[in-house]
Amino acid sequence: MKVQVVKNVLDANDRIADENRALFDRKRIHVINLMSSPGAGKTSLVERTILALRDRYRIGVIEGDIQDTCDADRVAALGIPAVQINTGGGCHLDANMIREALAGLDLDALDLIIVENVGNLVCPAEFRIGENAKVMILSTPEGADKPAKYPLIFQKSAVMLLNKTDLLPHLDFDLAKVRHDALSLNRDLTIFEVSCRTGEGLDPWYRWLAGQIDGDAARSSR
Amino acid sequence: MKVQVVKNVLDANDRIADENRALFDRKRIHVINLMSSPGAGKTSLVERTILALRDRYRIGVIEGDIQDTCDADRVAALGIPAVQINTGGGCHLDANMIREALAGLDLDALDLIIVENVGNLVCPAEFRIGENAKVMILSTPEGADKPAKYPLIFQKSAVMLLNKTDLLPHLDFDLAKVRHDALSLNRDLTIFEVSCRTGEGLDPWYRWLAGQIDGDAARSSR
Repeated sequence: MKVQVVKNVLDANDRIADENRALFDRKRIHVINLMSSPGAGKTSLVERTILALRDRYRIGVIEGDIQDTCDADRVAALGIPAVQINTGGGCHLDANMIREALAGLDLDALDLIIVENVGNLVCPAEFRIGENAKVMILSTPEGADKPAKYPLIFQKSAVMLLNKTDLLPHLDFDLAKVRHDALSLNRDLTIFEVSCRTGEGLDPWYRWLAGQIDGDAARSSR
Repeated sequence: MKVQVVKNVLDANDRIADENRALFDRKRIHVINLMSSPGAGKTSLVERTILALRDRYRIGVIEGDIQDTCDADRVAALGIPAVQINTGGGCHLDANMIREALAGLDLDALDLIIVENVGNLVCPAEFRIGENAKVMILSTPEGADKPAKYPLIFQKSAVMLLNKTDLLPHLDFDLAKVRHDALSLNRDLTIFEVSCRTGEGLDPWYRWLAGQIDGDAARSSR
């Protein structure tokens, strides 16, 4: 027997990501891959975004967690279809997990899928899942040194939401530095300063996301 | 040619961790493996701990980061020997990285090595490095659902420092729930409520750590 060795796990992942992407295009579904450290506010952003956009778009959610279903439960409580992926110890989602999860969603009844990745500022950024865009959250209590220490996620993201701005008066956080360092890594990064707790600053994010979904729809109908 | 396959990467890691452990025992060095999410306050705790204990113990530090040397620079500024490991994308430290880093420290001149792991609540907990104890930080802005979502790190740690208590008045953080859920996962977990920013609550941590180091020394001299 000859032993087959998969030389590059990322190549293998990319092939499935491309298949997911082609499926999303056929179904005219916009997909965002939401990433951050644990506790930066991903699920709160998902909830806020659902409430803001659910009258306009049909939304589904895929939740990625090591274990448990508490995030998917929060989404389902809003009447939104949600699938929970439990990675069983794995620190990121990959394209194949997304492919498996899609069986739990009616793809003919969705305009937007929000994928909430495992809380981790490192590995999720390495794995394409077939998304239109990677969106990251950095929360102010994490500190302004994060672009220097975790550059890949800033380089790969289209959007950074700088969350928990309501805590700024209580922190030593250098907003100008984090903006400068993030844009130095990725000059195309769109930055929104928000508080998912108070709702402040979120309207531009909703408009950005709606523009992306509408742009997809316009391209598909040409 | 027969193809050799390493069946269990964790088994391979454990063998090197045991060798590191034996070396630390011979040299009478106490080693802690410090883990948390990005920005929870690991380096601030290292700085505070150095200032509190450096007159009593000879301390060295190993810093783990994806890239850059800013944490090691902060430690070196205190006059403490520090070695920086750059994982180049890797999301955790392993036993072999520690073995390599030890070449940069004079093991005959140390009582305590603090290893600051990569900021990540998932994978660092899976890899033994030869430490006496794993110590984790959970910061209050991360939220009280973290034990349910990232159980392994709570199960593997001897100590949890609940950091950023100075922010509690500004957060919806359920302190009783996080204590209960963490202790449900690990009834031997020692919990300290601290603020590395103000210094509040840190004395019991210094006493705990000193007790561990002195206990080691007492056992070695028997």
